[in-house]
Amino acid sequence: MQHTEHSVTIDAPVHVVWEIVKDAEGYARIFPPTKKVEILEQSDVHEVIRLLVEVDGNDHTWVSRREIDFPGRVISFHQIEPVPMLSQMGGEWRVFELDGDQTQLVLTHDYALREAVDGLVAGVFAPQEAARLVEVGVERNSLADLGAVKTAAETRHGGAKP
Amino acid sequence: MQHTEHSVTIDAPVHVVWEIVKDAEGYARIFPPTKKVEILEQSDVHEVIRLLVEVDGNDHTWVSRREIDFPGRVISFHQIEPVPMLSQMGGEWRVFELDGDQTQLVLTHDYALREAVDGLVAGVFAPQEAARLVEVGVERNSLADLGAVKTAAETRHGGAKP
Repeated sequence: MQHTEHSVTIDAPVHVVWEIVKDAEGYARIFPPTKKVEILEQSDVHEVIRLLVEVDGNDHTWVSRREIDFPGRVISFHQIEPVPMLSQMGGEWRVFELDGDQTQLVLTHDYALREAVDGLVAGVFAPQEAARLVEVGVERNSLADLGAVKTAAETRHGGAKP
Repeated sequence: MQHTEHSVTIDAPVHVVWEIVKDAEGYARIFPPTKKVEILEQSDVHEVIRLLVEVDGNDHTWVSRREIDFPGRVISFHQIEPVPMLSQMGGEWRVFELDGDQTQLVLTHDYALREAVDGLVAGVFAPQEAARLVEVGVERNSLADLGAVKTAAETRHGGAKP
């Protein structure tokens, strides 16, 4: 299992960031590659959502389950139907309060590649190539997602500090 | 000013991690390149320390001021006498509680290169080369420092979770 962590400091209070991270339907507004989010199931502590996301010019869809820890301000997610290259994909959004109306946002990922069959992952990629593609994709998407939440929160809060 | 953030999840309670991050004199035990830490000044909320650190086989020394925010579990630091390539070097250790006896540790850096004189930074490096050297050094040291605190905390707490 691969584990990655990325973090960003946001010039907006913790409740503003938490509202944005919690609002799955709003993802289509703040993450440009996300075209549509459909809520399939919902309770106070969980959601099952279907996402339609453009990746490299093609539309992909997957279903994710999110567990919402309100007091801890953590949302853990995992793909119920992962994309073809992966046997598992999950992670957490973690929202922490900092002094001075700032917020620490951390995004983690835990994932595992599918085993190669006849030397190929998902019927197309050599294992090293698949590992590299996923690593680069997680890195790029993590930075993009954190940046999108930061921009949305600081805009909603009235702009970044000078 | 360049800003970087790195984070790690530690399988030990927040007070264990905070004690390790707060104990500047202990750094010489847990960070192998740090040979000696001398406390020059100390109060409940600040410290001035002199570090003796081996970098690329040579001993370097610098003086840092640390501001300790006990309730927020944040230690901010900045070099009072930065190393020759830098006009500023500072950052924060931030320690957050997670559920299940886990801790989120975040390490940030904010730094600025010295301006080039006659095309050279610190009399030796072209600006792009200096920028790249510092970027690589901050990346490597951040990962090493977070890893060292993680190992020390999990060892003290009795080992990582299975």
